[in-house]
Amino acid sequence: MARTAGSHSALTAPRIREAAQELFARHGYAAVSMRQIAAEVGVQVGALYNYTPDKQSLLFDLMTAHLDALLAAQAAEDRPADPMQALEAFARFHIRYHAERPDAVFIAYMELRNLTPDNFATVETLRHRYEDRLSAILSAGQAAGAFRIAEPRIATMAIIAMLTGVNTWFRQSGRLSLSEVEDVYWDMTRRLVTG
Amino acid sequence: MARTAGSHSALTAPRIREAAQELFARHGYAAVSMRQIAAEVGVQVGALYNYTPDKQSLLFDLMTAHLDALLAAQAAEDRPADPMQALEAFARFHIRYHAERPDAVFIAYMELRNLTPDNFATVETLRHRYEDRLSAILSAGQAAGAFRIAEPRIATMAIIAMLTGVNTWFRQSGRLSLSEVEDVYWDMTRRLVTG
Repeated sequence: MARTAGSHSALTAPRIREAAQELFARHGYAAVSMRQIAAEVGVQVGALYNYTPDKQSLLFDLMTAHLDALLAAQAAEDRPADPMQALEAFARFHIRYHAERPDAVFIAYMELRNLTPDNFATVETLRHRYEDRLSAILSAGQAAGAFRIAEPRIATMAIIAMLTGVNTWFRQSGRLSLSEVEDVYWDMTRRLVTG
Repeated sequence: MARTAGSHSALTAPRIREAAQELFARHGYAAVSMRQIAAEVGVQVGALYNYTPDKQSLLFDLMTAHLDALLAAQAAEDRPADPMQALEAFARFHIRYHAERPDAVFIAYMELRNLTPDNFATVETLRHRYEDRLSAILSAGQAAGAFRIAEPRIATMAIIAMLTGVNTWFRQSGRLSLSEVEDVYWDMTRRLVTG
């Protein structure tokens, strides 16, 4: 790889990602040009190509960076041995992490259609790795007799969709704090696997 | 309004909607031009303007038509007096109706950002009208002592997100039929409000 590192580059790469993320979230990937991204960052479009070969790579980088960071953050959380406590930790983490990153989450779901087949496969693998962690908690709870789940994989998808749905309506300025919202969703998640 | 009705118009208006829906779902609203929609339908772009004043109106028409049809279809369903049976009917209807219309559902969620403020307000009113029906069932069940729900409005959002999530993973060719998937989700929904 060409030597592009240094203080200028180190500053610009995150700014490119940030600009691309904001523009993709606002207008959609297909509607945003490399020229617009360069203008948003305040560089010439030619300079953009020092950091990324094309727009597809930029989208792929954003999605994999989001999922890598999600996996790392979740791995850094406490993982209680007790399945009920582990599920609570997962549910609360998921809500908090996603509510704080609405643009990245929006893109990660919405722009799957715009990934090349190879890039899509890589992104799906990362996403499955995250889902597998919840499935493992559900299976452990099932094995321990703490949970009653007919279809662990479907329960995984259902819980993730329910929790991520917070992003469609939650506003910091609303009646409930995020921590209160966490409480309500944790209560529903617990019932869903035990009730 | 100008007289544009007749057999030709009657055929073309749904075809325009269908073409716009497919193109918006595939590429995103902002990336699709009126010219592309005209080409997909097989008419000149000028002819398109006989049917719709602009692309925004087309998006707004698609979203309101989807929500109007959803409200009408749900109203035509049985509405059992018993809250548990009413909730089951709602949950099964929701899954079935949305799973059969992935493009319309995708657009209705994803392109909210591209509506003008007035159009957004109208679409939100229709969506709330649908959510209110589920909230009414939950409140009736709560009042009758059949459900235990801490926050009926949040439970409404949680259940709708969970059920709509079927669209992100369900494939007709998969291991489970849609009717089996309905069974699993109904079981989870029931537990969520009673467990």
